[in-house]
Amino acid sequence: MKRSETVADTAITLLAERGMRGLTHRAVDEAAGLPPGSTSNLARTRAALLELTLSRLTDLEVQALAPVYRLQGANAAADPFLESDLPELVAEALHVQLGDSRRTLARYELALEATRRPELREIYDKAGRRFRDPVVGLLAALGSPDPARHGRQLVAFGEGIMFDAIAGAGAVPSRDDLREAVRDLLRGMLGSGT
Amino acid sequence: MKRSETVADTAITLLAERGMRGLTHRAVDEAAGLPPGSTSNLARTRAALLELTLSRLTDLEVQALAPVYRLQGANAAADPFLESDLPELVAEALHVQLGDSRRTLARYELALEATRRPELREIYDKAGRRFRDPVVGLLAALGSPDPARHGRQLVAFGEGIMFDAIAGAGAVPSRDDLREAVRDLLRGMLGSGT
Repeated sequence: MKRSETVADTAITLLAERGMRGLTHRAVDEAAGLPPGSTSNLARTRAALLELTLSRLTDLEVQALAPVYRLQGANAAADPFLESDLPELVAEALHVQLGDSRRTLARYELALEATRRPELREIYDKAGRRFRDPVVGLLAALGSPDPARHGRQLVAFGEGIMFDAIAGAGAVPSRDDLREAVRDLLRGMLGSGT
Repeated sequence: MKRSETVADTAITLLAERGMRGLTHRAVDEAAGLPPGSTSNLARTRAALLELTLSRLTDLEVQALAPVYRLQGANAAADPFLESDLPELVAEALHVQLGDSRRTLARYELALEATRRPELREIYDKAGRRFRDPVVGLLAALGSPDPARHGRQLVAFGEGIMFDAIAGAGAVPSRDDLREAVRDLLRGMLGSGT
């Protein structure tokens, strides 16, 4: 593993376990077992460390969500399995993300920090589009009358389910609950055939 | 205004503007224009300050959401206006919350911190139930076949829409978008009559 990945992975863990207050260059050196100054050599400023961490986190989330996004390649409109499988696939993606709450908590910390750091906001939003655009495409292929709005809704729903389970006042939903939830929303957006 | 409210309101603003790292007893004294030590006198520890802040925030959110929760008093099952107005009322509540992103950002900071502080978690979850239980009751009154699950879904959807707009990669939805979003989910959960 490259040292920048070690540093970023350690920063992700620190963000999840200790929050934004617990993330310092020195804490990363210590937690990663690196010589003092290693993290500063890679990312001199706090902004640079946050950006490195968010970039790595995005790569990890893209990997985790690959099973859903693989569908992009298929001709969704011509593929009848897609409609019935979308709830299953989204549920699976949410289930995977709920299983690594460390990563998701770190993302939430970075999302909040991004409200105060325009350069971090830019990275966060660009990463967000990587997840959003394919969802809009899928909903268009499924016959949504308003794929842009419906795509935002499906992404927001997934985000809310995760936030509620990981940081909010909700319980962690089962995979069945996740599938039913996605199915409910899709049914409401696309009609009763879903 | 009581001094404890001044302190808590200032803490809410600091959390939103500077994050968990920016909230200290001293920063609250300074930002509120209070003599040094005032915040410490009210809430000696950091935990006590966070708990005071979250309790105040809950009161403010209950006030803001009163228009929706007022419905609790009505005999929901016998009230035909309810079903058609629920999307409007939820949309209005979300719109109000989106209009004060300061408060919502502070709540997200406290939600993340609550993952690391059991005593804060307890307050957060208890506050959460104040918002959740009536939603479950409303969905039962509207004929939901699974009001507990549907209630969680509706709360999670609202949370996700807010998180996405305030801290995530999404745009702030219009009131029309909010109403359509809630209507889509209700239609999927309750059937096409909604």
